[in-house]
Amino acid sequence: MAALRARAVLLTGSNRGIGLELVKQLLGGPRPPAWIFATCRDPEGPRAQELRDLVSRHPNLVLVKLDVADPSAIINAVKIVEGKLNGAGLNLLINNAGICAPVTLETVDSEEMIRAYKTNAVGPLLMAQAFLPLLKKAARESTDKGLSCSKAAIINISTIMGSIEKTSESFFKPVISYRCSKAALNMLTKCQALTYEETGILCVALHPGWVKTDMGTQEADLTADTSVRGLLSVLPILSEKHSGSLLNWEGKAIPW
Amino acid sequence: MAALRARAVLLTGSNRGIGLELVKQLLGGPRPPAWIFATCRDPEGPRAQELRDLVSRHPNLVLVKLDVADPSAIINAVKIVEGKLNGAGLNLLINNAGICAPVTLETVDSEEMIRAYKTNAVGPLLMAQAFLPLLKKAARESTDKGLSCSKAAIINISTIMGSIEKTSESFFKPVISYRCSKAALNMLTKCQALTYEETGILCVALHPGWVKTDMGTQEADLTADTSVRGLLSVLPILSEKHSGSLLNWEGKAIPW
Ligand SMILES: NC(=O)c1ccc[n+]([C@@H]2O[C@H](COP(=O)([O-])OP(=O)(O)OC[C@H]3O[C@@H](n4cnc5c(N)ncnc54)[C@H](OP(=O)(O)O)[C@@H]3O)[C@@H](O)[C@H]2O)c1
Ligand SMILES: NC(=O)c1ccc[n+]([C@@H]2O[C@H](COP(=O)([O-])OP(=O)(O)OC[C@H]3O[C@@H](n4cnc5c(N)ncnc54)[C@H](OP(=O)(O)O)[C@@H]3O)[C@@H](O)[C@H]2O)c1
Repeated sequence: MAALRARAVLLTGSNRGIGLELVKQLLGGPRPPAWIFATCRDPEGPRAQELRDLVSRHPNLVLVKLDVADPSAIINAVKIVEGKLNGAGLNLLINNAGICAPVTLETVDSEEMIRAYKTNAVGPLLMAQAFLPLLKKAARESTDKGLSCSKAAIINISTIMGSIEKTSESFFKPVISYRCSKAALNMLTKCQALTYEETGILCVALHPGWVKTDMGTQEADLTADTSVRGLLSVLPILSEKHSGSLLNWEGKAIPW
Repeated sequence: MAALRARAVLLTGSNRGIGLELVKQLLGGPRPPAWIFATCRDPEGPRAQELRDLVSRHPNLVLVKLDVADPSAIINAVKIVEGKLNGAGLNLLINNAGICAPVTLETVDSEEMIRAYKTNAVGPLLMAQAFLPLLKKAARESTDKGLSCSKAAIINISTIMGSIEKTSESFFKPVISYRCSKAALNMLTKCQALTYEETGILCVALHPGWVKTDMGTQEADLTADTSVRGLLSVLPILSEKHSGSLLNWEGKAIPW
């Protein structure tokens, strides 16, 4: 199997759950990136302790403060990352941060709809906008043909719960603000793929499975370890033929 | 062909474009509803002149002030409608109001993303929430079997531009805030269909075609007259088998 050769990777929401596991497995992989920018909302807080411990042992890991729901925080993060990269590009942007509130059609309100949309859909859009110059730089620097995660890519961590087709009586958890925001994220991914293709950037939405994290709960099917192993084995096989699609942690396509 | 027998119909954004044409054709149809609640943001303003002229000639037409992006305005509108219905239910809620800004992935910002989402996705959600008791009442009062627009229905005016599947190189207008909000509206429609089915309410998303209105521009394919004739001939044929789907003005299914 092809290995991921991304030199510089940035992740959002990397202090716990799937994000933290991605950081760990990227660090421990056969070919760790030269730079891993692990971003989170509160790098100094108690919920980033594990990430800080990792930073103290891995010089290629950089902790950056970033709330994806705050447009100015995104701009600040770009400056820090740009400084570290010192002229080089960013190969891989993983929009992982997400929130999911247990609201139904009956209980949801406008504020919750907007809150979920800001983090789960608008955040990934603004992240790609802001990091686009660095992604383009990585694409230009690469001699690889076609599109790949080793060259330049935007990976939006989405969910099967954002698939309208898969929303059915037998599979209906009524997390309405989450579902709507992730359906929008899927649309965003398709539009990003069409828009950024010509600049050499791959754009894919990935469903990590139902994963044992704070969000997924301990009832979930998969451990974070299994899910992330899957995701990281899918990344290197992605090419232009996958751009603009939604795949699961095993690389299987999910309908919209 | 079956005729629409809805006794009480409410529409949003009914002062111009497709909304206004819907009002006109509902009034002029073979079996006009006993009540048509034509809502709009500014019933006293210059853009509602045509609607006011219609009201002066049609006692079954009621003009109600309603901004779908304002949750408290929705609550106020319910009270007015409830008063007029005087114990009866609302058969048909048509969420037609919508906005579309010419922004691309490059030019869009957080505010525009939220603005479009509030009007195009959150508005329809809050409308259905607030009018649910009246819709349920209509469903209970009806002796019809199954689901229908004559009994109780929520029609969300969506668009093929909200279809991720149909978003392709050959059909790519980069109205990103609009596309994302309408993909979310499609997800909302599916969730509404699954949630409200047991209370007897049909939920369908309709694409009116590309229509000559302020939004569609004069380059569009269809006149508002043709589009609305199509939409109004689709409504009476809708049943439980269509609930939760996206159809065009000719009744053809559009993939998500
Ligand atoms: N777990 C599952 O079963 C599952 C299934 C499908 C998809 N997913 C998706 O996978 C991704 C990760 O989920 P998870 O299970 O790891 O969730 P999680 O355990 O709840 O962790 C969520 C992460 O996102 C961060 N976050 C939330 N809002 C943020 C914001 N505004 N800015 C920056 N970071 C923010 C959190 O940071 P704080 O510590 O600061 O809150 C945390 O690091 C999400 O996009 C989720 O939708 C998960
Ligand atoms: N035209 C097309 O080609 C086309 C294609 C596909 C789908 N659609 C959909 O069809 C629907 C109607 O479109 P149209 O072509 O008739 O558009 P339009 O000519 O621009 O009219 C839009 C209507 O929505 C109202 N509106 C906007 N924001 C509102 C808010 N916050 N609260 C209440 N009303 C609001 C406007 O009222 P004001 O006068 O106060 O602004 C106006 O009445 C929209 O949902 C649109 O997305 C249109």
